[in-house]
Amino acid sequence: MCWAEGFIAVDWGTTNRRAYRIDDSGRSVEEFEDGKGILNVPSGGFSEAVAEIRERLGDRPLLLAGMIGSNRGWVEAPYVRCPAGIDELVEGVIRVTERDLIVPGVAYVGDGRADVMRGEEVQLVGAVAAGLVPPDCLVCHPGTHNKWAVVSGGRIESFRTVMTGELFNLLREHSILSELLQGDARPDEAFRRGARHGLSQDDIQAELFSVRARVLLGQAPANEACSYASGLLIGSDVRIELGSEVGRQVIVMGRPELTELYAAALREAGSQPIELDGEQSFLAGVVRIAERL
Amino acid sequence: MCWAEGFIAVDWGTTNRRAYRIDDSGRSVEEFEDGKGILNVPSGGFSEAVAEIRERLGDRPLLLAGMIGSNRGWVEAPYVRCPAGIDELVEGVIRVTERDLIVPGVAYVGDGRADVMRGEEVQLVGAVAAGLVPPDCLVCHPGTHNKWAVVSGGRIESFRTVMTGELFNLLREHSILSELLQGDARPDEAFRRGARHGLSQDDIQAELFSVRARVLLGQAPANEACSYASGLLIGSDVRIELGSEVGRQVIVMGRPELTELYAAALREAGSQPIELDGEQSFLAGVVRIAERL
Repeated sequence: MCWAEGFIAVDWGTTNRRAYRIDDSGRSVEEFEDGKGILNVPSGGFSEAVAEIRERLGDRPLLLAGMIGSNRGWVEAPYVRCPAGIDELVEGVIRVTERDLIVPGVAYVGDGRADVMRGEEVQLVGAVAAGLVPPDCLVCHPGTHNKWAVVSGGRIESFRTVMTGELFNLLREHSILSELLQGDARPDEAFRRGARHGLSQDDIQAELFSVRARVLLGQAPANEACSYASGLLIGSDVRIELGSEVGRQVIVMGRPELTELYAAALREAGSQPIELDGEQSFLAGVVRIAERL
Repeated sequence: MCWAEGFIAVDWGTTNRRAYRIDDSGRSVEEFEDGKGILNVPSGGFSEAVAEIRERLGDRPLLLAGMIGSNRGWVEAPYVRCPAGIDELVEGVIRVTERDLIVPGVAYVGDGRADVMRGEEVQLVGAVAAGLVPPDCLVCHPGTHNKWAVVSGGRIESFRTVMTGELFNLLREHSILSELLQGDARPDEAFRRGARHGLSQDDIQAELFSVRARVLLGQAPANEACSYASGLLIGSDVRIELGSEVGRQVIVMGRPELTELYAAALREAGSQPIELDGEQSFLAGVVRIAERL
């Protein structure tokens, strides 16, 4: 890529996108976020959506990551397989034009499972490259689809997706629990109580209904339901991944309002979580990838 | 109630209602179903929605059951507590007018849980009264909110709700899996494979994402996803209730297209399910209740 002019990095997700102008020293000097995630761009509208980014941040090379490279995005960038580090991502970059490049997602197949990620891989290899996480660690990356990634020798060795964020959103927006789940979940005592239930019992589809029944029957206050349900789902998520390996150190990387919830649930599980802002890792990742292109 | 003219029984749920004209010998002689569940009736519109039933089935006394008696319905009929049999239901009937009666729901509080039902209780006591089920049994009642009811001495001793149907609908209508989950789930090999996963592992929030990932990576055909996901959720539901009590006899009561799915999952769990049409039990229940009013 032409470093003299810097470049624009975009973390382009399903519902939002975030664009950064990176200067010739690798620093982000201007940015914006908007709601033009891939599902909000009409079919055939990606060239225009890309042009708009250049209008706002300047006519520079673009390095795009996330769902923009999926089969619902602009141009598909086939998944690279685990184990995947920065070398594999660089090799898999797709050049839509000489100035429009898309980072591939990562796929895992093994243990009778199959899994995919798009976007988190840049943060994971970026965090390793920048020394923000050690080359061997377990990273939890909360979001619509929470990813648990085993990083080994600086590469993504395997990972597992848990649909926790999406399930919570579905329940909040469209379910019988909608009214009760308005507001924000906080890592308070109700959250921790929900997390302990999710960590110790595997009945969330039943316990979620109990959240409403308890309020109806006067057994629990309505204003604790949102945090309790969030704790229940996140505690169950942690149980699925950690199983009996309680006490394990986990790096929780992502948006701070989510990492604090996962950190609270991990502490209930006896783990020692370290929180890390995902944006810093994303920027470290795109700069390292751009340097090699 | 005035038996000379018969009466109208209504199973009034969240999204649908079904009304039956019962003649003076206790038989259903005319019926209709429509989409005027309580969530589709505007606030203050219940008198009109009730009048409409009489317009269609005649000016007779009405015995209403289900969500119509909830705090979002017409007039709230407070829950009666478990253990609840036909006597408790009759005692709890609310008279909105002398000719408009609402059957109460049932609440369970115990074992650190709280739970509620509205509508299924009529089927449960009706099935016992009509000799369709023995007075001591475990009944599974699939629906938007599946109920597992322990019937003892002919009364509902305790029960547990699992949100399986609602979760499946949320995933089908609003999630990243929507496209994959169109069509109908069938009790085929893909369903049974999903059920075996749900019965043996407690990771549905992760396995659901795998359904999509496997298709993306060519590890599974897209046309099996709907049945597999349904089997996964129902298998998990059965695991939550039965735990280690595999082989237990279960009566599955409800709509035939749902009971056949639960029966298939129960057989995978080594149980011996007996299927029963819920409509017959509902009619038996309302007639027995009406006889006592």
